[in-house]
Amino acid sequence: MKVLLLGAGRSKRMKPITDKNFLNFLGEPLIEHQLKLIKNAGLDEVVIVGGKHNLEELNLCGKHLGMEVSVVEQKDLDAGMCGAILAAKNKIGSESVLIFSSNDVVEKSAFESVINAFEKDDAEGYLLGKVVHEYFPGGYLEISENGFIKNIIEKPEQGKEPSNLVNLVVHVHKDFAKLVSYLEKAKSDSDDLYEVALANMINDGIKMKAVKYDGFWQPIKFPWHVNKVFKFFFDNAKKIIAKSAQISKNAVIKGDVIIGENVKILEGAVVNGPVYIGDNSIIATNALVRESNIGKNCVIGFSTEVARSFLGDDVWTHSNYIGDSVIGNNVSFGAGTVTGNLRLDEGEISVNSDDKKTPTGENKLGMITGDNIRIGINNSFMPGVKIGSDTFIGAGLVIAENIPEKSFVRGEIKLKISENKVDISKIDRGEMKKKIK
Amino acid sequence: MKVLLLGAGRSKRMKPITDKNFLNFLGEPLIEHQLKLIKNAGLDEVVIVGGKHNLEELNLCGKHLGMEVSVVEQKDLDAGMCGAILAAKNKIGSESVLIFSSNDVVEKSAFESVINAFEKDDAEGYLLGKVVHEYFPGGYLEISENGFIKNIIEKPEQGKEPSNLVNLVVHVHKDFAKLVSYLEKAKSDSDDLYEVALANMINDGIKMKAVKYDGFWQPIKFPWHVNKVFKFFFDNAKKIIAKSAQISKNAVIKGDVIIGENVKILEGAVVNGPVYIGDNSIIATNALVRESNIGKNCVIGFSTEVARSFLGDDVWTHSNYIGDSVIGNNVSFGAGTVTGNLRLDEGEISVNSDDKKTPTGENKLGMITGDNIRIGINNSFMPGVKIGSDTFIGAGLVIAENIPEKSFVRGEIKLKISENKVDISKIDRGEMKKKIK
Amino acid sequence: MKVLLLGAGRSKRMKPITDKNFLNFLGEPLIEHQLKLIKNAGLDEVVIVGGKHNLEELNLCGKHLGMEVSVVEQKDLDAGMCGAILAAKNKIGSESVLIFSSNDVVEKSAFESVINAFEKDDAEGYLLGKVVHEYFPGGYLEISENGFIKNIIEKPEQGKEPSNLVNLVVHVHKDFAKLVSYLEKAKSDSDDLYEVALANMINDGIKMKAVKYDGFWQPIKFPWHVNKVFKFFFDNAKKIIAKSAQISKNAVIKGDVIIGENVKILEGAVVNGPVYIGDNSIIATNALVRESNIGKNCVIGFSTEVARSFLGDDVWTHSNYIGDSVIGNNVSFGAGTVTGNLRLDEGEISVNSDDKKTPTGENKLGMITGDNIRIGINNSFMPGVKIGSDTFIGAGLVIAENIPEKSFVRGEIKLKISENKVDISKIDRGEMKKKIK
Repeated sequence: MKVLLLGAGRSKRMKPITDKNFLNFLGEPLIEHQLKLIKNAGLDEVVIVGGKHNLEELNLCGKHLGMEVSVVEQKDLDAGMCGAILAAKNKIGSESVLIFSSNDVVEKSAFESVINAFEKDDAEGYLLGKVVHEYFPGGYLEISENGFIKNIIEKPEQGKEPSNLVNLVVHVHKDFAKLVSYLEKAKSDSDDLYEVALANMINDGIKMKAVKYDGFWQPIKFPWHVNKVFKFFFDNAKKIIAKSAQISKNAVIKGDVIIGENVKILEGAVVNGPVYIGDNSIIATNALVRESNIGKNCVIGFSTEVARSFLGDDVWTHSNYIGDSVIGNNVSFGAGTVTGNLRLDEGEISVNSDDKKTPTGENKLGMITGDNIRIGINNSFMPGVKIGSDTFIGAGLVIAENIPEKSFVRGEIKLKISENKVDISKIDRGEMKKKIK
Repeated sequence: MKVLLLGAGRSKRMKPITDKNFLNFLGEPLIEHQLKLIKNAGLDEVVIVGGKHNLEELNLCGKHLGMEVSVVEQKDLDAGMCGAILAAKNKIGSESVLIFSSNDVVEKSAFESVINAFEKDDAEGYLLGKVVHEYFPGGYLEISENGFIKNIIEKPEQGKEPSNLVNLVVHVHKDFAKLVSYLEKAKSDSDDLYEVALANMINDGIKMKAVKYDGFWQPIKFPWHVNKVFKFFFDNAKKIIAKSAQISKNAVIKGDVIIGENVKILEGAVVNGPVYIGDNSIIATNALVRESNIGKNCVIGFSTEVARSFLGDDVWTHSNYIGDSVIGNNVSFGAGTVTGNLRLDEGEISVNSDDKKTPTGENKLGMITGDNIRIGINNSFMPGVKIGSDTFIGAGLVIAENIPEKSFVRGEIKLKISENKVDISKIDRGEMKKKIK
Repeated sequence: MKVLLLGAGRSKRMKPITDKNFLNFLGEPLIEHQLKLIKNAGLDEVVIVGGKHNLEELNLCGKHLGMEVSVVEQKDLDAGMCGAILAAKNKIGSESVLIFSSNDVVEKSAFESVINAFEKDDAEGYLLGKVVHEYFPGGYLEISENGFIKNIIEKPEQGKEPSNLVNLVVHVHKDFAKLVSYLEKAKSDSDDLYEVALANMINDGIKMKAVKYDGFWQPIKFPWHVNKVFKFFFDNAKKIIAKSAQISKNAVIKGDVIIGENVKILEGAVVNGPVYIGDNSIIATNALVRESNIGKNCVIGFSTEVARSFLGDDVWTHSNYIGDSVIGNNVSFGAGTVTGNLRLDEGEISVNSDDKKTPTGENKLGMITGDNIRIGINNSFMPGVKIGSDTFIGAGLVIAENIPEKSFVRGEIKLKISENKVDISKIDRGEMKKKIK
């Protein structure tokens, strides 16, 4: 069985984070994590669908895993999932194929379940049905009495769901060519040609089976999904502290951690897992890192707290608080700069994207940045603001709006300077000093 | 002997702190501390005078101490001490009575002294005379040759004090009914009917004795008195660390502390007594608490310093400096917010109350807050500012004025965003990183 | 041989730092360090040239070293080095003299080299030639075939240097009276009469020898030279921790340190040498000091980092970051105030002096202050700003310009206060609290 891995998305909703496929979780790009899961589920031959923005990088993937990976280009990136699948038309013939998207992070057992079902060979298609325990606005699988899928009902009214199984694109098709022919005939005004094709197949009596799955599922569509995915990968990874890491005996390591080569953890620092720290990073004196992914070559400076955040490579902090944030590569923070990660009323945080407000479902969310950013001292970032790549931000500012890429942001400085007539040299702190114990 | 405890004051001068009787010192309201002192001095039967604002709460007091407490209402709260005493007219007949105010915090020995004097039965009244060692603007007791009080001289000119004994209302009257009759006849244009009645009694030959007292006395009239009272109660309390408290072996406890149930003190935290920490509070990583009262359910967050401050319950801090402050209940501080607790010229701090400047006699004083307040990140509070209850405060602000209750406070944000033309990805910090040891 | 130590400079380029001669390195003024070096090189008799601004203080110098020090006044401080030397005309006759400036910090071997050369007695003058390994904009010594100095070429074009020896004023003249006579006859439109006199002497056939020196040389002309000089003096000083110093067992001392009498180093503090800490200073809880000179009676407060900085006496910090800075005496920093020590583009920092921009050659430089300064909370100082003496600075400001002495600096505060209608008492943080580990 071949795997068709859909990875052509342009990560628009992830902005200012660039291609999510290459976000490094635990030092490895998302796409490699996906390939590894596939391999561990027993599949070896993968066709990745990319776009011209990431073809080159995709071509390098999977090699070190010993997998047979080929990459095809989806020319029209607006053509959605249908277009992505059709891009592989010449790579996969009438073979069986497992289709999934690099967007969707699931457990290995998700793949194993559909593969096991497929091996029983009692249907032409096998769709993963994610068991939901509360209402979820997705496509629900309606199961007929004989056990096959009767219908997929998109976003039914709450209380009217036909089952507790939501369609999750980990789909096996026995004959890829047949799927292709249905896709080529499908018609729709909106971006749901794949779903239309599936419906047509079912209507034509092609048997589709629902494969129940009650494990982890986290799509990465928005930046605030990143930390959830980090935790999943972390939980499933081997917890190793590299021998070359130097951990001060005055530092404290709590919980599960993965610590890379040549990492230094200085005096008074606390690393409170789950925490991943990439190679050559430094956790400096009296810093605190908890529940976070720290990339390589980072410096978490003196008295900084990083909590529940994802930091790329080459991030420098210094007496900061970075909470519930997603920070790109090569970003530095001046001393005293902090992220607000909670609204004053502690309500749900919305994020602006392309003039649209997106509710995040989160009441804790910090800032989201692209790459190559230099941030000055004593700035205050409001919850959910996005900072575009290649940007400088001055000092003492309150950043309550998204900052476009390639910006230089300053404030207005108006000092009033008058004459001081107090003789400061006469002020005596002797008594005050005696009280310090 | 009955005790008449005056507790009807509306704590106007304590604003934005609400009823001082229910300020929790070491987890117990002031009024309970007062009742306990009374009980320890051997008295059991107490009539508390309250106002309609606190009758309900007063009714719950003293029960667990096994005291016989009844509460009467002073209807006209503008009628002062005389009105307060008369409110108890129907509760106390011709019995002996010890009168004092919940305002005045004194040692148990103050009560014992007047009780002992009363037991000698050589006068009709016994007034506590607080020995003062420097001028104090109060009522001085003039003692006649035969040892009885001749007069009470209000605020004499400095150097013209008739004695070193200041009238402190811990007064025993042998016959409450007689006091009542004098109060009912007393006449004055100002709020001194009790003093006028005392003078009339003395003039009529009723013998009043001065009982010397050289112990602790701290009235709680203004917020900056709170920390002094905390220290007194702390010194007299049993120093206990609850067994359920979890103290990291990397944390440091210095000096005397009282630590409640389920308190957690995390790595690198320092608690430098005298410090009280209420149940379920957390002193987080690398925080410092010194000479402070921390209520219950508080979180003193990463790298916060709390010094010489009184915090109510449910206070959350995070990388803050809170010095010489009085903080109400359910108050949270965003990261980087700090209190200024010293004028630049280190002079005496004045506080604004109702358009009036009150000099505090203190050169160290931080902020004073009511309850239910959410404060954003990187704010700066000037010494002595008051923040009213039910208030939100934005980010990056300098708060140099009192904020009324139910406020939402923001600043003006004016960012200048221009195009950045520097290629930040080219900036190399390799050399800088090598230097970190 | 007498020593003529030139110390009349008014330290204009050092502003707002006052007389550099009395900057205390490791607790001792620069001028005393210079005298000690001289003494260690075997010379005992010193004439210091001062100006009326420092005559009194200079008169106290060298006594405790057992040196014979006399002070002469240079009346016309605009008369440069020539004027300085002539000021000593009546103090030194036809004796041999070693001339150098208190500006130039060199190793003892620099003095020993010229003394040794002089003892061979094969010339009338001996000029120290500092070996440079890259182009330096100074006066280069041109050496003739017979080994004597032929010429001194001021700032030759790069690549056209006549040698790799730069004229460093550690000069021995066998007959001071002869030098004086040449100085009196020298003529020039600019401030180079000493150089003109030397040239005239060489032209008249007076033999001058170049004495090679390949050791440390750091002129103190600008404030950013101070830390380099600190490191030199530190490296050459005995590393002692006073017995009276109290170092918490939870504090960490790394690298080489010198710690004075009665210093206290509290819990969680890290001192990362080279660090000098003067008598009676306190390094408070969780503070970090690295590569810095801390004067006496300082308090490095909770969670402060001081890095690569020079602090005078009586400096108080509190939750600050002070990096690459030069701080005078009696300066205090409010909590949350930080120095920016890096431009956003990490380029070379320039400093404004008298309306002129001086490039510093440094890409790390913090702030430079005079004496007697009180700085409020949460201020941000831009790299290279200078703060004049006797100045107050408010709170929450961004200081991006030099502040003149005797200033009171405030910002504009514009708060917008509206009504809050949210019931904050209903916000529940119970779940949040459970997650703290």
